Parts: sequence; structure tokens; C-alpha cells
Amino acid sequence: MSMSPDGITLGELAVRFGCTLKGDPDVRVFRVATLEAADDRAVTFLANPKYRKFLAQTRAGAVIVEPRLADACPGAALLAANPYATYARIAALLHPARAASPGVHASAVVDPTAAIDVSASIGARAVIEADVQIGPRVVIGPGCIVMRGTRIGADSRLVASVTLCAEVIVGERCILYPGVVIGADGFGLAPDRGEWIKVPQIGGVVIGNDVEIGANTTVDRGAIDNTAIGDGVKLDNQIQIAHNVQIGAHTVIAGCAGISGSTVIGKRCMIGGMVGIAGHLTICDDVVLTGKSFVPGNIRKPGYYSSALPIDETPRFRKNAARFTQLDELAREVRRQRGHTDADREPVDDPPSG
Amino acid sequence: MSMSPDGITLGELAVRFGCTLKGDPDVRVFRVATLEAADDRAVTFLANPKYRKFLAQTRAGAVIVEPRLADACPGAALLAANPYATYARIAALLHPARAASPGVHASAVVDPTAAIDVSASIGARAVIEADVQIGPRVVIGPGCIVMRGTRIGADSRLVASVTLCAEVIVGERCILYPGVVIGADGFGLAPDRGEWIKVPQIGGVVIGNDVEIGANTTVDRGAIDNTAIGDGVKLDNQIQIAHNVQIGAHTVIAGCAGISGSTVIGKRCMIGGMVGIAGHLTICDDVVLTGKSFVPGNIRKPGYYSSALPIDETPRFRKNAARFTQLDELAREVRRQRGHTDADREPVDDPPSG
Amino acid sequence: MSMSPDGITLGELAVRFGCTLKGDPDVRVFRVATLEAADDRAVTFLANPKYRKFLAQTRAGAVIVEPRLADACPGAALLAANPYATYARIAALLHPARAASPGVHASAVVDPTAAIDVSASIGARAVIEADVQIGPRVVIGPGCIVMRGTRIGADSRLVASVTLCAEVIVGERCILYPGVVIGADGFGLAPDRGEWIKVPQIGGVVIGNDVEIGANTTVDRGAIDNTAIGDGVKLDNQIQIAHNVQIGAHTVIAGCAGISGSTVIGKRCMIGGMVGIAGHLTICDDVVLTGKSFVPGNIRKPGYYSSALPIDETPRFRKNAARFTQLDELAREVRRQRGHTDADREPVDDPPSG
Repeated sequence: MSMSPDGITLGELAVRFGCTLKGDPDVRVFRVATLEAADDRAVTFLANPKYRKFLAQTRAGAVIVEPRLADACPGAALLAANPYATYARIAALLHPARAASPGVHASAVVDPTAAIDVSASIGARAVIEADVQIGPRVVIGPGCIVMRGTRIGADSRLVASVTLCAEVIVGERCILYPGVVIGADGFGLAPDRGEWIKVPQIGGVVIGNDVEIGANTTVDRGAIDNTAIGDGVKLDNQIQIAHNVQIGAHTVIAGCAGISGSTVIGKRCMIGGMVGIAGHLTICDDVVLTGKSFVPGNIRKPGYYSSALPIDETPRFRKNAARFTQLDELAREVRRQRGHTDADREPVDDPPSG
Repeated sequence: MSMSPDGITLGELAVRFGCTLKGDPDVRVFRVATLEAADDRAVTFLANPKYRKFLAQTRAGAVIVEPRLADACPGAALLAANPYATYARIAALLHPARAASPGVHASAVVDPTAAIDVSASIGARAVIEADVQIGPRVVIGPGCIVMRGTRIGADSRLVASVTLCAEVIVGERCILYPGVVIGADGFGLAPDRGEWIKVPQIGGVVIGNDVEIGANTTVDRGAIDNTAIGDGVKLDNQIQIAHNVQIGAHTVIAGCAGISGSTVIGKRCMIGGMVGIAGHLTICDDVVLTGKSFVPGNIRKPGYYSSALPIDETPRFRKNAARFTQLDELAREVRRQRGHTDADREPVDDPPSG
Repeated sequence: MSMSPDGITLGELAVRFGCTLKGDPDVRVFRVATLEAADDRAVTFLANPKYRKFLAQTRAGAVIVEPRLADACPGAALLAANPYATYARIAALLHPARAASPGVHASAVVDPTAAIDVSASIGARAVIEADVQIGPRVVIGPGCIVMRGTRIGADSRLVASVTLCAEVIVGERCILYPGVVIGADGFGLAPDRGEWIKVPQIGGVVIGNDVEIGANTTVDRGAIDNTAIGDGVKLDNQIQIAHNVQIGAHTVIAGCAGISGSTVIGKRCMIGGMVGIAGHLTICDDVVLTGKSFVPGNIRKPGYYSSALPIDETPRFRKNAARFTQLDELAREVRRQRGHTDADREPVDDPPSG
């Protein structure tokens, strides 16, 4: 873990990040730490109420907290309206990413037609194909493959082992982690006499600014038009984004989720881990999908949605799952007992898909 | 997006692909486009009824449609029994994959015992180990690793960053996308006094002809016998195929599905995204599994199967999920109310696993 | 498939692995095979009762079985208390992994500050960055990237195309398969006025001894403290382990599972394929989660847990799924019919999350 050799005073942190300081402005901190592990050279924070119990005992040089918790801090406190965001900014200051040296590593393979800004860094064993454009201060880590015609905007970083297939456009300040594959062909198949014919995939992928794409996540190129990832979108690891998906700005998606082809997702959505979304759907802005949900139809109203049963002890779960296979029959029986005559009425809320 | 510089006449398209032409045979098209975006230099198609509404306004040079829609086309039409398959073939003609130059890139590392056809292309930074055989017109893209004893049939293509572990056999005309890993050891473990002993994995992987394997999909080598992927199988991205699985010809599997060890899947199956199939099972031919289904037992009858609950608003879903934990009890209560004495009878349809 | 050129006698196998031999101790076997495929030069085993039916017809040189099955073997038998574990050890003897040559391949890129044991093997196109430490007999396969400050213990093997980000610690005798990414940044984001700020990830990853990590599995570095994988843990392919997760010794996790951030998993757990576990939870020792389970809360009691409904024919499943959306209402109706007045009582077992 890198850290700041000279540190920074609490007074300077308060000024730079708009906090009220409770404590000595000349105290210096050098790194961040957890509430439990921090010593007097570290700054820490409290945002999740689960960790409130550790506050009284912390030995941190300062704690970033909401103003209402000022008196609960045993030592210095940096009072901030949004302690977690303030912590994120202070951590970035104290633990800056190691700067990459500009230039092309001797072991990289770069096509002469590629246009690479002089301030960019091309790492060991990277391959840059024809007609690629790489902007200022871009970092292409070791082992990355950037194929023909791709463009990467200023200050973006491919950490290592990233593969960008032909004609991908990446915006500015993006981070792509190892194993990411952008622009592979989408899963386009036409049935023809018992076999499947490949449908050529000729669209591209356009990724906005300030996008993060986690390790081993895949984003396919469009079939005809582009696949599009909006500004500020954050994708965790091992996510699959199929061809022609559009994801609105500032939407976040947790690990192992999968979005099927041509689905359009709104802005500021929060999609939980392992969520699966069917194809050709529209999900409106500000939708929250809890973990492992299955979305077979459009969502037109912002809000929280779920579909994953939680675990139970296996014998009891199996008994109930067996009864589930008789649920429609059971409901009809209850109606009959009520003396109603509508026992054969179709269920009202038939889901669009199962 | 590459496109055809000289284009092709509608008359020639009709002859080559067996369509009836409604319109001027001398009109020339140069590329494909969507119904909405097409101009008079582009050919488009209508296959999904969802897009029927765009037909009347299209400005396309020609539309590929079923004969019954001929009169609904505002301009020229190529009438085909299977418009989507015809579109796929025309798109492949107008947008051919860029040809790779035969030969071995100077930065590739090739073992002297590897047998590489002179018409094959080995890309930058590829590694070809001992005793590998690479057939005519094969393309090994940049960054691929082809380990000891692997054989790749004619006209197959490893796009980039593909890893084939030892002794994999790949058929002809296959396409493997970036991040694919074929032939890693299966998950074979023997419990022994509270620990797990690795069971050596000595089988191989045999992949048929005309197989596509999507980005970051993994296919493990067999424990003793081989793992086998049939002719014409199409695998989407991020699929996991465990050791000794067999997949029948022309089966397609959507993204993020997982098939556990030793399961045998029939021909012409369609397996949806995120489907999970347990191990040591047999799935017959012509089975369709809808998205996110869980298969804990054999399937002996062709047809459609499902198990994923669709989303509901979270508060309502949680109320119903809580009731699910009491479902067996509820069913017994209903029976008691009916005056039956069989309330303690075991459920009839106990699923094989939960 | 490699095999032992000189073979080994049954007598020697019995002595080395503590078996009782029924048969001629001078018979020689050269390889392992399945019950069905074995000939007299192969040794096989019977552990899964499913394959019991093949025992009478086997032509194997010897069968490894439990003592009670000695008389059911048509030929020689090696009697062992744990036939599968004994088979694993014999297979490892007859089919040893091919030894890698010590030394650094000419095409590898190694930073001069890296400390590489002379007995280690660094493969073609590998990249070893500054301050890396690589122990005795370690094998770094082709195309691996080992980034700054990483340490790898004796006898560990990175098969090929593995990426270890900065400051990862790998123990002894570990095996990491292609596509594995260890130490990428965790998914740490702070909401701030409708956007998401990246929270710097400055913790590391510490992996114990005898750990296996399957193809395309990802393990993120910690946010502040480390992510930790215990001794003897076995991870299958395509698993996602988020930041600050801790996994206890000898726990095994099947393919496509996902563990969210800061969750602590006990020892000797068995986690099925596609299981999803929410964040900030504690799972005690000796928990078994069946395939596709969803874990939204803590587990405090060892045992078996499940939550995945098994497939049913789609029309019937959909009818029942529609009724599920009315289940709370149905339960209230049944209570009303019983004449109770507690119809509006809240459900007792409200799950912690849905």
C-alpha cells in the first residue's frame, strides 16, 4: 500500500474538502485506515451505522463523520455532510495511483498507423493495431490488446490484460480492469433448417466518460447500431452486456449481472449482483433491482423490485417448493371453499414471462 | 464498420440468395442498416414483428421481408421465406470479415515442433507451444496462447486473447472470442480427512465444426474421458462448461449459463441466459430452458421449462416470500378445512433436488 | 494424455497407498481409465454408486474399491477406505504434470528488481514487474502478468494468461488457471449528488497455501484491509469474490458463484454453483449451500440451505408463479376461513431481504 510520505495537516484537509474541523489543525495524517486499525497517523471515517460501535475506541488521528456525531468522536473530527464521499476524496489524495511513465515499452507491438499521444503510456507486451487513436495521459497496461480503429479518450486507463476488439470508442477518465473484453461479436444467430447461421455483427461499442468496467466483464458490439454505455456508469466484475444494450448515465451494476440484447436501461439505476434482464426491454430511470432478480418484462415505474427467494433449511425449502408446483390448484381450492363460483377464473397477474 | 465499396445490385442479391425481387434490379446497395436508419444505399430487413411499425417509413434501398409483406414495403423488397437468415447471408457478403495476412508475426513465439499451415495467420504476441497443429487458413489473433498438443481445424479463428490449454481439439470453421479458456482442469476434488485432494484431470476437450464460443466462456478438460461440444453448437459469453459435459449438435446456450460436470445435453436445445444445470444429468433433445432456470434433475421430454420467478415490487415480493416459507403448512391447513383426513400425507411432487 | 512409460506394479501401489491388494502383486498398470473404458493396463475406481452397474464387466487391471466390494470385482482390486482419494493419489503418480524447465523464457519481460528463485520457470511472453518475489519451483505460464510487489510462494503454478495486480500474496502449492484476475480494484463507490465517486482501493489480497482458483475467477483487492482466502480453499471457474471477503480454510465453491463485499465465510463450507451471497454477512463453519441459492442474511447454524425452485413445464410454472404474487392474500383468506381473527397479523418469518 503506497502512502503519502509527508502527509497533510487536518487544517489543510478541512479547507480542501469543505469540512468543519474539530481538533488541532496542525496535526498531520499520512494514510487512511479502518476505525479499528487506525493509529494517530491515519485518518478514518464512519458512514455505515454497523461500525458506529467502533467509534468511541478509535485511536485515529481524525475521523470523518457527520456533524451530529462530532461529540461522539474521542479525538479530532472532520465534519462533512457526506462522510463517505469526503473519505473517498481524501483517500485519493493520500494514496495516489502510481504514475505510469509516458512512452511505449520496448516489448509492445504498435502499428505505424496508430496515433498515440506523447503523454500516453503503452505497457509491456501491449499490442496496438492499425488506425488506433490513444489520447493524452492514457495508460495501456501490460498485455492489453487494442484492435484496429479503436479510440481511447484522455486520462483513461486499461489496467492490464484488457482486450478491445475493432472499432471500440472509450471516453475520458475511464478505468478498465484485467480480463475486460469490449466489442466481441454479439450472439446473433438466425435459425435455418435446424442449424444456426451467424448474423454478422457490424455495430460498435461507445463508452462514455468516467466509466469503470470491472475484471472479466464483457460488452459486445452492436449487431447493426452501437452498444452504448453512458457517462459515469460503473460496472462491477463478470458482468455480461449483450449487443445493442444501452445503459443510461450514472447507472451502477453489481457483479455477475447479465443484460440481454437490445435492452435499454435508464439513468441512475442500481442493479444488484447476479440480476438477469431479458432482451428487447425498457427499464426506466431510477430503478433498483435487488440481488439475483429476474426481469422478464419492461419496468415503467421507478422503485425497488425483487424476485429471489431467500434460503431456508433444505428439507423445509423442498417441502415448500413441492407445494409451489400445486399452488394454482391450492388457490382454486381456497376459492371453492369460500363458496365462490369464480374458481376457474384465470389468474389476474399472469407474469409476462417465467 | 467496413462496407462494400462497389456494392451489389438488387438483381444479383435476388439471384444469389433465391429471393423474389419487387423493384428495380439495377439499384445498387452497399451496406446493411436498421429499418429506421437505412438510406437508399442500404438494405434492411423485417423479421421481429416488434419492428413492423417502422416499415412504412423506411427509406432503405430494399427491405428483406416475407412475401406476404411485399405490398407493405414503400420501396423495393427482396421476398424471402426466412428473411432473417437471408439478411444474415447478405450482411456477410456486404460486410466481409477483414482477411488476415498469412504468416507468423515477428513477435509471436512458435515452438519448432508446431505444424502450422502456410496459409494460417499467427498474430502479434501469440504463443504456440510444442506439437500444436494448425490447419489451413486458421487465424490465431494477437495475444492467444495455444498450449502443447492442441489441434485447430481449417478456417477456424481465435479472435484475440484466447487460451487453449494442452491437448484441445478444435474443429473447422469455429470462432473463439477473447478471454475464452478451453481445457483448464475440471473441478475434481476428493474429500479426505477434512481437506480436499486434487483429482488429476487427464481428459481432453473435443470441439466440433462450426462452433462459436463467446467472450470469457470456459470449457474444462475431462477428468478421464473428454469434454465434448457438438457440431454447430453456439455458446454466448461467460458460460461455464464443466468437465465431461457433452453438448449435442446445434444446441445454443445464452450468456452466463453454467453446466455442471458430466451432464449430457441433447441436440437442438435452447438454453437461456443464467440457466444453471446440476451435474450427472441427461437433458434430451429439443429442450428449451427459459432464462435463469435451475435444472436439478433429468429432462426426458422435449418442451419448454422454467423456474425463475419474475420481479415484483420489493415490499409485496417480500410479503409473499415470507408466506412461501409456510406454504406446506398452508396447504395442509386447506386440506384440513376440506374435512379430509389426509393432511399428513407427503407432498406428491417432491422435486428431485432444491 | 501423458502416462507412465514403465508403469507400476499393483504390489507397489498397495504398499505406497496403504491398500489391501486382492490379486497378483506383479501385474503392472500404466494409466487410469473409467470402469467402462479400462483395459488390463489401466487402473480404475468405483466411488459413485451410480457407476456400480459397470463393475462386473470391467476389464481393468485393477479396481480401487471399498473393502466390502472386493468380491464384486471381476479381477484384481485395491481395497481402500476412501477409494476416490486413493484414486486421486494413484492418478497423480501415473500421470504426473509435465515439469517446466527452470529459467526465464527469452520473450518474457522481467523487471531487474524482481527476485526470482533460480528453480522457478517464467514462460513465454510473461511480464514480471518491479519488486515481485517468486519462490522455489514456481511456474509462471505463458502470457501471465505479475504486477508490482506481488509475492508467490514455493511450488505454486500460474498455468497461463493469469493476471495478478499489484501487491497480491499467493501462498505455496497454489494453482491458478487461465483468465484468473487477482487484486483488481473492488467496487467501491460513494454516491455524491447523483453521481458516483470512486473510493480508492488500497488493501491487498492474501491467498493461503494449497489454494486452487479456476479459470476466469476474479478476487478483488480490499478497500482498506485485505481480501483473504484461507488454506486449502478450492474455487471453481468464473467465481466473483468481492473486496474484503474472507473465506475460511478448506471451503470449496463451485462455478459461477458470487460473494459480495466484506462477507466472512467459515471453514469447510460447500457452496454450490451460481450461489449468490450478499455483502457484510457472516456464514458460520460447515454450511452447505445447494446450487443457485440466494443468501441475503447471516447463517449461524451449520447445515444445508437452499432457495432455488426447480424447473417445471413452462405453462404450469407460469400459472403457479402468477399465484405466488397473491400468496400473502391467499394465506390471509385461509386464516379468515378458519374463523381466526388474526388475519392481519404480520407474517412471522419475514426474510431479512428479498
